[in-house]
Amino acid sequence: MVTVGQIREAAERLPPYIARTPLLPFVPLSESLGFEVWLKCENLQLTGSYKARAAAHILNSLNEEERRAGVALSSSGNFAAAFAYLGRKLGIPITVVMMERTSPTKVARTRDWGAEVVLCANRHDARFEVLDQLQRERGCVKVDHFEDLRVVAGHGTIGLEIAEALAELDTILVPSSSGGLIAGVAVAVKALCPKARVVGVQPEGSNAMTLSWRAGRLVDIGEPKTICDALVAQRPGKVPFDHVMKYVDDFVLVSDKEVEQAVRLLAFHAKLVTEPGGAVGVAALMAGKVQPLRRGPAVALLSGGNIRPELLAGLVEE
Amino acid sequence: MVTVGQIREAAERLPPYIARTPLLPFVPLSESLGFEVWLKCENLQLTGSYKARAAAHILNSLNEEERRAGVALSSSGNFAAAFAYLGRKLGIPITVVMMERTSPTKVARTRDWGAEVVLCANRHDARFEVLDQLQRERGCVKVDHFEDLRVVAGHGTIGLEIAEALAELDTILVPSSSGGLIAGVAVAVKALCPKARVVGVQPEGSNAMTLSWRAGRLVDIGEPKTICDALVAQRPGKVPFDHVMKYVDDFVLVSDKEVEQAVRLLAFHAKLVTEPGGAVGVAALMAGKVQPLRRGPAVALLSGGNIRPELLAGLVEE
Repeated sequence: MVTVGQIREAAERLPPYIARTPLLPFVPLSESLGFEVWLKCENLQLTGSYKARAAAHILNSLNEEERRAGVALSSSGNFAAAFAYLGRKLGIPITVVMMERTSPTKVARTRDWGAEVVLCANRHDARFEVLDQLQRERGCVKVDHFEDLRVVAGHGTIGLEIAEALAELDTILVPSSSGGLIAGVAVAVKALCPKARVVGVQPEGSNAMTLSWRAGRLVDIGEPKTICDALVAQRPGKVPFDHVMKYVDDFVLVSDKEVEQAVRLLAFHAKLVTEPGGAVGVAALMAGKVQPLRRGPAVALLSGGNIRPELLAGLVEE
Repeated sequence: MVTVGQIREAAERLPPYIARTPLLPFVPLSESLGFEVWLKCENLQLTGSYKARAAAHILNSLNEEERRAGVALSSSGNFAAAFAYLGRKLGIPITVVMMERTSPTKVARTRDWGAEVVLCANRHDARFEVLDQLQRERGCVKVDHFEDLRVVAGHGTIGLEIAEALAELDTILVPSSSGGLIAGVAVAVKALCPKARVVGVQPEGSNAMTLSWRAGRLVDIGEPKTICDALVAQRPGKVPFDHVMKYVDDFVLVSDKEVEQAVRLLAFHAKLVTEPGGAVGVAALMAGKVQPLRRGPAVALLSGGNIRPELLAGLVEE
């Protein structure tokens, strides 16, 4: 298990180009709900999502030989972006494994950021087979971001920043998929603000962690169906799950419709662009699915802002 | 003339609900331009624009009698929003004078915020005649935001925050209309960072301050034609103009097309929603119209984020 001490170490070693993102009061929502709502703006993070934190933490923990050999991982979204961008910045070769069905836009974007993309068969297991092969053949460092303790520690730095800025924290809402983000945030928040409640938020159509948390064991949901393209883990990671069972207080689900309303509210009333998965915490608050324990403040963690232009245009038009 | 001491006083008296807005590195633009670009995010200010600063400064400077009598001003945009919102918050009656041709949406919104709206004939002078009448009949405090030194001092607090956070400031780009914002910012920046250059940015179709600065006297341009609906002063205020002549180094103009590109870049690469007038500084940088004197950093002041949904939808779709 990751300790708050390890998260503090990760925070101290975070390089200056990783943003200590703003924690902003969300006045219009606070006024309509009757308690303080704050936004932790990881959509304003380098590469547009919180993933840059764990990517920087991992890349900076490599020794000289590992840096030369490079890193291989599987992701088609924000993790690929973060590793590709930071790998180029730090001169570390990055290889990203994606399934053949991945949209050509995402493949092209990851290549533009400077990573090599290796396509594999359209099976989830195929990704890990290719990763193993890359490790054997090239000697590169394989990162399994579902099960890497450094991911939990790196993302935990967000919890640290929130707890240090808002000691009277009442409730924090954290988007949840494989669980690395909420695991790290929960460890930090529970250590610094023991009275605070940590609530995970998932889309109704992608609720693997919620089901797993309720069942007390890992549950696989098959193909997720949600507008939240950053929250599509079919099952939680085992490492994050163990932290979640110990530290997280509750999970709530939001519909795609509720998420769309949250993206719109954030654009026009917080002036922030978020991706659907980044807005689930605000969606849960708007829908009254989470109430503060005492009188607030509640924090919604905005995990990312990488939304497709067509989707944003459609949402803001309504 | 406003002094930096008066701006410091205004800063010390700014209430806690006025945000000390984030100053964020704009990494993608910095990388493409080859020098550091930072964003001062007044779009994240209470009521969605920097106008809340001067409004709070003025409302908090009233004595008991004046607070009871209330405040009257003429504005159809961000100043009306700021005064209406803060007036309700502080229990000070606000009357806003608007021309009859003002869009019903803006009238309704200002009423929703709790202000009384008084319509007047469609002549610019008619607004001031009605303001004078309100002052005589109701004894309320008339605010002429073109000529009020407290406006310059209140907005100067933005310059103070930037200069204190970024001592090595090279160039700051400030949206300019009647001139209150750039006047205050310039006084603060020149006092704290004497080597920094202050550049005003105006739309090509609304360039009254630019023409006035070049001519050394107030110039009236008639009806402005620009997408930047927050930057439509037909002529500068005399008070801001005097400050501009003394403290501002240059003015540049941007086209509506350049502004649209800037709004889009900010939405997708800074994850920030800005109104067209708020994005003119970024537009000038993107178009290469302003280069740093030394090697940066440059700061673009994002003055507001109150963009119409249809306009934002149209811009992000392209």
